[in-house]
Amino acid sequence: MSDKVRIALDAMGGDHGPAMVVAGAELALARHPGSEFLFFGNSALLSPLLEARPSLKSASRLVHTDIAVKMEDKPSQALRYGRWKSSMWLTIDAVKKGEADMAVSGGNTGALMAMSKFNLKTLPGIDRPAIAALWPTVRGESIVLDVGATIGADADHLVDLAVMGAATARILFHLDKPTVGLLNIGVEEAKGLEQVREAGRILREEKLPDLDYHGFVEGDDIGKGKVDVVVTEGFAGNIALKTAEGTARQIGEYLKGAMSGSLRARIGFLLARPAFRKLRERMNPSRANGGVFLGLNGIVIKSHGGADAEGFAAAIELGHGVVRDELLTKITAALARAGKLPRQALGGAAS
Amino acid sequence: MSDKVRIALDAMGGDHGPAMVVAGAELALARHPGSEFLFFGNSALLSPLLEARPSLKSASRLVHTDIAVKMEDKPSQALRYGRWKSSMWLTIDAVKKGEADMAVSGGNTGALMAMSKFNLKTLPGIDRPAIAALWPTVRGESIVLDVGATIGADADHLVDLAVMGAATARILFHLDKPTVGLLNIGVEEAKGLEQVREAGRILREEKLPDLDYHGFVEGDDIGKGKVDVVVTEGFAGNIALKTAEGTARQIGEYLKGAMSGSLRARIGFLLARPAFRKLRERMNPSRANGGVFLGLNGIVIKSHGGADAEGFAAAIELGHGVVRDELLTKITAALARAGKLPRQALGGAAS
Repeated sequence: MSDKVRIALDAMGGDHGPAMVVAGAELALARHPGSEFLFFGNSALLSPLLEARPSLKSASRLVHTDIAVKMEDKPSQALRYGRWKSSMWLTIDAVKKGEADMAVSGGNTGALMAMSKFNLKTLPGIDRPAIAALWPTVRGESIVLDVGATIGADADHLVDLAVMGAATARILFHLDKPTVGLLNIGVEEAKGLEQVREAGRILREEKLPDLDYHGFVEGDDIGKGKVDVVVTEGFAGNIALKTAEGTARQIGEYLKGAMSGSLRARIGFLLARPAFRKLRERMNPSRANGGVFLGLNGIVIKSHGGADAEGFAAAIELGHGVVRDELLTKITAALARAGKLPRQALGGAAS
Repeated sequence: MSDKVRIALDAMGGDHGPAMVVAGAELALARHPGSEFLFFGNSALLSPLLEARPSLKSASRLVHTDIAVKMEDKPSQALRYGRWKSSMWLTIDAVKKGEADMAVSGGNTGALMAMSKFNLKTLPGIDRPAIAALWPTVRGESIVLDVGATIGADADHLVDLAVMGAATARILFHLDKPTVGLLNIGVEEAKGLEQVREAGRILREEKLPDLDYHGFVEGDDIGKGKVDVVVTEGFAGNIALKTAEGTARQIGEYLKGAMSGSLRARIGFLLARPAFRKLRERMNPSRANGGVFLGLNGIVIKSHGGADAEGFAAAIELGHGVVRDELLTKITAALARAGKLPRQALGGAAS
């Protein structure tokens, strides 16, 4: 990897399109002046946006394509019309070809995962990729995976998720041995889904070197930050993530309602405004925007479809963290130490 | 059913024990002076609590038992030592024998469900019971089921849940045709779990008379109140419920932190205190405490294990609502209209 971090951006992804992506890249460049950007998308839309930002423009290259993956299409449809030529495909392909260190897209999650899997292929020993999300907690942040890549998981897949999630936590949170919990409906060993219990038995008995297995955790333990890594399959994980987002938004609505009540309340809130601003920031999902695709031969970051420029910059930032600390090398080494990889698949990765 | 609502209470259930249960019953009696209470539990603990409340005492009967189900026991263990004689069993048994119109317990959920199923049996045509929760939303309240009774569900079971949930919403929310959504990870028809897609097909095509099928909903649609009834199997439902509770608590912590910041913030919050009190009330889980067990020959209400007296009173209140409007009769009739019951199983229930 060169000193400069090279970032491929799907400029057509997300609900707010090229303007949001370019503005997000500008914010990210200000924070990491060594970055280089590769934009893929409609040049008629992108050129004027870059012209207006000379310093960003000088750090960027623009590759035109007419084809953009639609948010509502099925992965199979998107692959049919978007393979080889859509902005999403080309963004991933830049990572495949070694022209970029990571790909970032705010587009259709299912299509992004399907194209990433098709183009980059999964790591040796991993059949099914996962999406890891950064989850704000009262203690800081945790990693929750899988938040929607793969529905259902047997015990072995859950153990893979634990190993990959822990490797990510080691890098992002600078921890030696992150704590890992399996999401379940009850914390007793005898409770919940059979495959979750079996994964718990494996993690308890095998005492893997790179993680500290805590046991089962429940939905309300995520926000407490009880463990650094919460492991679950993609259906339950996605529902947990979206439910938490919905609840935060709902309480935000309540708060707005309370603030616009009596005159006394309005004066009080006016005085407390700086404190509220801080609160809003903590509740703001763009602070922790970005899902990391795990289990692939390359770094792909999914930004939230509804993210603004600030959120998109946070997703790029997340990519900086994992690229700088060489996530793939560390995941491969951790999988090997967990006995999940044949030695010959390792190359020089195990350290 | 007599005019008076007769309520059997497991006085030993919940984290806070008899004192909380008796105080909750007193609050409930004040709101529904026609209530009669049957307390099951340790009379050495209960008698003094009732002596101190003469009007509650005169509306109550106390049945002594030494045996209480522990919060941490497996359902099978609880059944072994608690069948026939624990406070939980006797509470359910009072409903079975027709001595009470409903049972309320804050005890071990798994044990309560196992004993309820064993003693009351399921409704004809229903194999597996469910727990329905009242979920506060920005529009009011919705019903979410199953929040933890039964792990996994095939398409038919999900349709049963839709029918039973809609019958409950008709009663509790006074609606003719509640809207029903299936919880999934994406709203497009082709997304998510196969059994959820199949249930969606059945609900779309069969156009059941007692509900208005909306389609799929995602985790963040629950808090928006997008539908009156959200249907999912017990694993995902429990994780959604607990995650929402955890997120609300987490934001409460943030809020507390923000309020105790600068002097200016503290003065502001002091002025806005009445508005905050209202907000706290809306965020308070005891406002909507209580899960209704559905699919059984009898009404059993689960109160949150950590509920205070106010929360326990809310669970009793919920029972009042469903008993008064004869939930079981309406569910049986709705199942019949949905073609889920043989006509001969109906008796006079279908109207």
